[in-house]
Amino acid sequence: MELVPNNTLICASPEDGRRLALGLAMQTSFAIQPDDHVQKIIRDAYMNNPDGLIAAGHVVAIEFATIAAANNYWR
Amino acid sequence: MELVPNNTLICASPEDGRRLALGLAMQTSFAIQPDDHVQKIIRDAYMNNPDGLIAAGHVVAIEFATIAAANNYWR
Amino acid sequence: MELVPNNTLICASPEDGRRLALGLAMQTSFAIQPDDHVQKIIRDAYMNNPDGLIAAGHVVAIEFATIAAANNYWR
Amino acid sequence: MELVPNNTLICASPEDGRRLALGLAMQTSFAIQPDDHVQKIIRDAYMNNPDGLIAAGHVVAIEFATIAAANNYWR
Amino acid sequence: MELVPNNTLICASPEDGRRLALGLAMQTSFAIQPDDHVQKIIRDAYMNNPDGLIAAGHVVAIEFATIAAANNYWR
Amino acid sequence: MELVPNNTLICASPEDGRRLALGLAMQTSFAIQPDDHVQKIIRDAYMNNPDGLIAAGHVVAIEFATIAAANNYWR
Repeated sequence: MELVPNNTLICASPEDGRRLALGLAMQTSFAIQPDDHVQKIIRDAYMNNPDGLIAAGHVVAIEFATIAAANNYWR
Repeated sequence: MELVPNNTLICASPEDGRRLALGLAMQTSFAIQPDDHVQKIIRDAYMNNPDGLIAAGHVVAIEFATIAAANNYWR
Repeated sequence: MELVPNNTLICASPEDGRRLALGLAMQTSFAIQPDDHVQKIIRDAYMNNPDGLIAAGHVVAIEFATIAAANNYWR
Repeated sequence: MELVPNNTLICASPEDGRRLALGLAMQTSFAIQPDDHVQKIIRDAYMNNPDGLIAAGHVVAIEFATIAAANNYWR
Repeated sequence: MELVPNNTLICASPEDGRRLALGLAMQTSFAIQPDDHVQKIIRDAYMNNPDGLIAAGHVVAIEFATIAAANNYWR
Repeated sequence: MELVPNNTLICASPEDGRRLALGLAMQTSFAIQPDDHVQKIIRDAYMNNPDGLIAAGHVVAIEFATIAAANNYWR
């Protein structure tokens, strides 16, 4: 299983960095729980749950902080 | 879907940075759960829930830390 | 609505930085949920709730980290 | 109310930094909810609650990260 | 018990860094609760629990931030 | 009560840094709630609770980030 797409944190723009952050955040839960069926149940559960959505957004924010630093904030 | 408005973290002032942080935090949950109807239910739920409001404020604080660093803290 | 008082992260001392951190943390929830009546219900709820108080303190700690870095830690 | 003892983040050693971190974390909740009686109820509640203790320790860890950076990690 | 595989944070690529982050996050809970039987019960519980999966992903994100900084983001 | 063993964040290796992070995370809860009997009840409670274990691991990850930075990541 590939955990980091293209095996790099470097990307062209903040928009691409944000997509990578979403990808990393999602990929971790697949790495911990690879069963497709369980993943689907879990995804449905938190997608309709405000606390789960905010918690997922929290993880995306942390991944994005790392990616933004790696790219020197695309200054 | 655009994840980062104007595709940049650079902005003119802390006030603008704060608005960007609010936008990024909100945008993530749209990216994860794009269904408008579910978004509305979720937004209503956490807007009247102190824990949800604080949790959302937490994510904004993290996004803002990244944006502030990107802008060298508007020193 | 003003999100960052005086539109700057620079302040004279750690004490002032701490007050700014408290202000930023509070201001975010007003920005997300501007209804005064709902704000009051929410504020009462979490002020008497240890988990809410700690969660609010957590957000203040993150805002303060950003402000302290912006001020080069008042060294 | 004094939020930062002696109005400085600079301190002599990691041990002193840790005490400051504990102080900052506690002081925030007094600043948010200054009523002594409510503070006592809240303090009792989370002191006997593992989740509350870990959550408080989490805030101390974040405050300490800021203080340690301010002191260049006492290297 | 070994807490950091090979006793280094330096690794060849983001992919390896991500695996190390997963390993560190898992290893901590073994260090706190080394009983195999309890570990299994706990692992089963959170693997089927969306909140637990997101919380674990959150810890992985923080470990990864440290590892990425240690490796100068594999720039 | 000693909060930081040997009163330093500097240590020889990532392995030692990890042990220090575990120690700091545990020590905070003793500092907040020093009663041995309550500590035992609390420790038992979260050791058998997946959410508590992940939350404790989260704090260890943050303490470790500080220690790793203090040691320039043992590069």
